[in-house]
Amino acid sequence: MFPWPEVGESLSRIATPMPVIDEDRLAANIARAQAYMTAHDLAFRPHVKTHKIPAVAEAQLAAGAVGINCQKLTEAEVFSDAGFQDILITYNILGPARLVRLKALNDRVASLRVVADSAVTVAGLAAAFAGPKPLRVLIECDTGGGRVGVQSPEAALALAERIAAAPGLRFDGLLTYPAVGGAERVEAFLSAAMALLAANGIDCPIRSNGGSPDIWKAHLVPSATEHRAGTYVYNDRSMVRAGECTHGDLAMHVLATVVSRPTPVRAVLDAGSKALTSDLLGFPDHGEIEGLPGARIVSLSEEHGVVDLSACTAPLPEVGEMVRVIPNHTCVVSNLFDRMVFHRGGVVTRVEPVAARGTVW
Amino acid sequence: MFPWPEVGESLSRIATPMPVIDEDRLAANIARAQAYMTAHDLAFRPHVKTHKIPAVAEAQLAAGAVGINCQKLTEAEVFSDAGFQDILITYNILGPARLVRLKALNDRVASLRVVADSAVTVAGLAAAFAGPKPLRVLIECDTGGGRVGVQSPEAALALAERIAAAPGLRFDGLLTYPAVGGAERVEAFLSAAMALLAANGIDCPIRSNGGSPDIWKAHLVPSATEHRAGTYVYNDRSMVRAGECTHGDLAMHVLATVVSRPTPVRAVLDAGSKALTSDLLGFPDHGEIEGLPGARIVSLSEEHGVVDLSACTAPLPEVGEMVRVIPNHTCVVSNLFDRMVFHRGGVVTRVEPVAARGTVW
Repeated sequence: MFPWPEVGESLSRIATPMPVIDEDRLAANIARAQAYMTAHDLAFRPHVKTHKIPAVAEAQLAAGAVGINCQKLTEAEVFSDAGFQDILITYNILGPARLVRLKALNDRVASLRVVADSAVTVAGLAAAFAGPKPLRVLIECDTGGGRVGVQSPEAALALAERIAAAPGLRFDGLLTYPAVGGAERVEAFLSAAMALLAANGIDCPIRSNGGSPDIWKAHLVPSATEHRAGTYVYNDRSMVRAGECTHGDLAMHVLATVVSRPTPVRAVLDAGSKALTSDLLGFPDHGEIEGLPGARIVSLSEEHGVVDLSACTAPLPEVGEMVRVIPNHTCVVSNLFDRMVFHRGGVVTRVEPVAARGTVW
Repeated sequence: MFPWPEVGESLSRIATPMPVIDEDRLAANIARAQAYMTAHDLAFRPHVKTHKIPAVAEAQLAAGAVGINCQKLTEAEVFSDAGFQDILITYNILGPARLVRLKALNDRVASLRVVADSAVTVAGLAAAFAGPKPLRVLIECDTGGGRVGVQSPEAALALAERIAAAPGLRFDGLLTYPAVGGAERVEAFLSAAMALLAANGIDCPIRSNGGSPDIWKAHLVPSATEHRAGTYVYNDRSMVRAGECTHGDLAMHVLATVVSRPTPVRAVLDAGSKALTSDLLGFPDHGEIEGLPGARIVSLSEEHGVVDLSACTAPLPEVGEMVRVIPNHTCVVSNLFDRMVFHRGGVVTRVEPVAARGTVW
């Protein structure tokens, strides 16, 4: 089987490509986000899609998080199996195969919530749930993100009435995953929907806002009671660009080796799209090489990353040299590896199974 | 554990997102490529990175392939464990951890070959290999692909001399992974390098050319003795665009469900970047939805694909409806799933472990 690094091993000796997590930065990221949420009286619910590792989620809960956020049913099942008792699945769950399993999950998790944004989703949930333990449902609202979600406070009210009318469901509130910089629009939507619900006698205890890119602006949405965020835990190049963290807060690097220097201005890394993914997140290139200013990862094939060194002034890396890549997007890198290597000061501290990798739906 | 579909199940009932492989198209793709290579007297060596499944590689060998091509050492180890005896690893293998394992692999595989494009790589191989079973090495040549490879026939000769001078290595020939449409340039490079090698008394039995995008033009490189290709086995949207296959040759589709219809012109699928990947391969969008002309998958988040329906004239898909997505790039989709579902006429025939998924280096 694959020779994962061992505890105590030096990162300088491990084979690449390999993402690694800095324990101290991880702990600092967890503590800083929780302190901010606590200071602003916001319940914090970390999104585990970023790491998919129960031990990391346990650290998030230990710091004060109220529960976890999953993006799919089978991801939630893995975390339930690992003992987590407060889980929010921010997904429209549809179809008989998933609904049967959702019901089983609701029976074994103390607090399970899902979202819905259409009458079809609510009808499916209502038909599947009945009996002593209702399923708690939030209505997902599109407050500018342009993905899923009801389009107006009026539509939220109409859907809340359907949920409230279903014996097996309980309406628990509103949820949104807004576009970046959308605090005013989020607040306007949530406060209008809350007023409509109140006018119609419907309780709306939870207003859940989300996103790492605006994590430090969560307090600008006063109607929110909860915030969800994933990326903040590792951070990545997109978070640095957004001004949400500094290079010193980057907990994930992808270690890579220069496997070729075909020309004086070209280096080729052993990290390609099967290690870094092709997520650009608006960048023109595929990650930043730490300590090599001017270097640009201009193209990826599956197992190669082609680096243009023509703008570099630093000493150029030779064949066999290891470099540290800051990925554009950390959440998708996690999803490619069966285990994640953690280190402190370059020495391996633990190798955690990425338990929820490979959960399909 | 995850409920993979069962043999005999209808695809219309399985939960999504899920890539599926059409058995008949798969078999036809394998047969057609092999017939072409045989007709042109080219040894055919399929690249297994596309499927990572021993059973598919066995079908490729049964059709007449001479052996398999792997892109990393641990991928080759998985296929060796599955009984494959003729393996080419098209990668510069560097570093003590990998070299120790490469040597062990060479001891247990009847015919193992690797590539090298630098003196550093050759020196590492030469130091690791000695004794009765030399390692066979091809020189990778950059014939326009702009990735790895020596830059000139003269550089190929110089490296061949180093390989020939190492007691533990055997120089076996030349290899290239050219840019699309580069047949003339490939031929010019290979024939010039062969002439130089011959003039210096160095045998060059193998000239290995590669790539699916130009697969039906392989015969335009008369100096080549072998062709390697991966994508052809499943085909994808990029292969249709290149004119290398038709829609009827697409063996892989990603089944997805419409989970939201937030506006009249927006649908959201449960296939995002963790199912389709963000590989654009030059496309402006993230895959083609079969039977829904005008629909465009305009953005992906990790578990959602946002579809713009504004140019559609067909009946629009409703929440809960299943669609079939033709992925831009099949090889990276395979890499995300632990198992692959095969079907004939929409009925599941087998569920194969993607055995070499998760092989890190």
